[in-house]
Amino acid sequence: VKIEPGDRKTGRQGSISPSLPVITLLTDFGTADYYVGAVKGAILSVNPSAVLVDLTHEIPPQDVAEGAFTLLAAYKTFPAGTIHVAVVDPGVGSTRRPIIVSANEQFFVGPDNGLFTYIYDREPSHRIFHVTAERYFRREVSTTFHGRDIFAPVAAALSTGVPLEEFGAEITDEVRLPSLETPLRIIHIDHFGNCATNITRDRSPSEIVVKGRTISEFREFYGAGAGESLFAIWGSAGFLEISVNGGSAAQVLGIKRGDPVNIR
Amino acid sequence: VKIEPGDRKTGRQGSISPSLPVITLLTDFGTADYYVGAVKGAILSVNPSAVLVDLTHEIPPQDVAEGAFTLLAAYKTFPAGTIHVAVVDPGVGSTRRPIIVSANEQFFVGPDNGLFTYIYDREPSHRIFHVTAERYFRREVSTTFHGRDIFAPVAAALSTGVPLEEFGAEITDEVRLPSLETPLRIIHIDHFGNCATNITRDRSPSEIVVKGRTISEFREFYGAGAGESLFAIWGSAGFLEISVNGGSAAQVLGIKRGDPVNIR
Amino acid sequence: VKIEPGDRKTGRQGSISPSLPVITLLTDFGTADYYVGAVKGAILSVNPSAVLVDLTHEIPPQDVAEGAFTLLAAYKTFPAGTIHVAVVDPGVGSTRRPIIVSANEQFFVGPDNGLFTYIYDREPSHRIFHVTAERYFRREVSTTFHGRDIFAPVAAALSTGVPLEEFGAEITDEVRLPSLETPLRIIHIDHFGNCATNITRDRSPSEIVVKGRTISEFREFYGAGAGESLFAIWGSAGFLEISVNGGSAAQVLGIKRGDPVNIR
Repeated sequence: VKIEPGDRKTGRQGSISPSLPVITLLTDFGTADYYVGAVKGAILSVNPSAVLVDLTHEIPPQDVAEGAFTLLAAYKTFPAGTIHVAVVDPGVGSTRRPIIVSANEQFFVGPDNGLFTYIYDREPSHRIFHVTAERYFRREVSTTFHGRDIFAPVAAALSTGVPLEEFGAEITDEVRLPSLETPLRIIHIDHFGNCATNITRDRSPSEIVVKGRTISEFREFYGAGAGESLFAIWGSAGFLEISVNGGSAAQVLGIKRGDPVNIR
Repeated sequence: VKIEPGDRKTGRQGSISPSLPVITLLTDFGTADYYVGAVKGAILSVNPSAVLVDLTHEIPPQDVAEGAFTLLAAYKTFPAGTIHVAVVDPGVGSTRRPIIVSANEQFFVGPDNGLFTYIYDREPSHRIFHVTAERYFRREVSTTFHGRDIFAPVAAALSTGVPLEEFGAEITDEVRLPSLETPLRIIHIDHFGNCATNITRDRSPSEIVVKGRTISEFREFYGAGAGESLFAIWGSAGFLEISVNGGSAAQVLGIKRGDPVNIR
Repeated sequence: VKIEPGDRKTGRQGSISPSLPVITLLTDFGTADYYVGAVKGAILSVNPSAVLVDLTHEIPPQDVAEGAFTLLAAYKTFPAGTIHVAVVDPGVGSTRRPIIVSANEQFFVGPDNGLFTYIYDREPSHRIFHVTAERYFRREVSTTFHGRDIFAPVAAALSTGVPLEEFGAEITDEVRLPSLETPLRIIHIDHFGNCATNITRDRSPSEIVVKGRTISEFREFYGAGAGESLFAIWGSAGFLEISVNGGSAAQVLGIKRGDPVNIR
């Protein structure tokens, strides 16, 4: 089934709202500078009906893998037709390609640097287009801010119903990050100090070993814990997490993203 | 008068906009993770016309009282029909109840853990409903992320006009925090270092004693001060604040939330 | 040409959307308190159709010059008819005037303390109105929170089509900051550590001297660098920036805003 942005269906309610296309933003821009505002203005100048949603702007600077994980964890809740603009882009201005990905009846706009790797893996019937149609760019394109000058206006044009094929040719030699599946490791530490691993339910682990500690207690929810004892819990993104009740497991363990994990 | 979300009246202008229901979000999720994005997607998947407004996502982790204060200070400016989703939820996954509160022609959706205490106090004619109708939840409900799986879709369903009674039975044994009225104390320290007390105008204080310092100067506005002298000022949420001109009173006093205050 | 807010044209697409006026917010409120939420509620209570866009709320407290720079760097991407509410307002409650500026077919609402200086310089045909019509204020105006009580409802009234002249008399004795053009200096340090100077292309510099270091390498884009060597690059706001590849030039140089820069 080929879905155009205007055809967005909206979950259980079944209503259709082609006039209010959702465009999400995920960047490493932070929120103190003018960058996010400039991107939003550039989108609204092309499509004033776009509904803008911030996923986050706090991806660590130039950390493509962290951006890829956050996008993976968030995209599923959005309605069909949603356009996700993702800009973690250390290669801005170089020859890396701007792309649009079509997957899961949603769209992803950003640089071809691996940012969409986990979407490719999760959605095998994705299609990828190399954006070359400069008529959808801003009039003057800088070499330092393609978020504003290329990705924003392209996403906005897409949201007005421009067909995917208009933006450029389909490609199959996309850049990919190393797999999220191996080796077993910490892939994300959240605001509360919960440590997400890349362990999925099909591995049926009974014990986790990390930083010399063996964790064999599995809990159903955070509130059940007491004291500082570490426990494992199936997190909301589908991965096993290591947590401690009312505190930061990351702090207790002195852990950082990328640290190895073993299971038994 | 019973107000349904679709009947929203909008302040002085008197216009009605049932097609653009406002849904605000207040959480302790921070803005670096995928959590806020996932909640917004879950709302827009049920009601793509919802107008999403972030109150804040920087409530200190699991600090229900701080969340309750911020909600109290912000809700009054919103139009009738607004739905406030508040998620500071250390008991997620346990037996604590999801609730909807109807008060001041607005709605509040979140956990029954005291987060709405100050709304109950301020709006005596509130009503509280225990949300049990699982048909309004997401298809699979996790034990760790009810913001996404219960509160977001329930608020979105409410915004489409589902009557309150459809979500569950009315209750009167809600959980409440200790009173905001006594003992006299610092209840909030803001971004500028202003220290809000829980002293209201009816107490007519002439002097404030805090941290061994006696403050007897009352000012009309911040700009009037000079140097580092401390002064008292009636803050915008209706509480007496302790401030210092062009600096942080919290820093000058070495104060923290909960510290006691006396008046004369 | 006199443009009313309702007449917004929207860039290349040429469509008109008078029913979705864009109102942006730039403040020094931070995002942890109730302030931003209260402002948004106050706007939506007057015009529920307003499309709210956060530029930033992380202007350093009371730093009018930084707010002025960020506004300058962001406003150009927004569609005609956009209303920018800017509140960096150390003089709140004093006699400083609330104003509306009309410039570049956009509008700017905030205090008359220099916050719009760089807009005046960039848009010579601007007009400035002293807002005195209290009927557009909130019913009770505090002395500490004009963002909520004056600027928000005035901007919202403007977005519903109230003519500029209704708000008060035109003025020409506005407050201005010192020029952005001289002396040559660092005017902004961004989230990535890039250091923006106030050097524009018409100065055709061949070397930059800053903190005793001479920078003679000019690059086209960030990705081209290697190691810690400093280079100059034309930034996306039209100013020359000093950068280092994959790191923070501000950290490498130990630089802060206001530090002098020389060119050859």
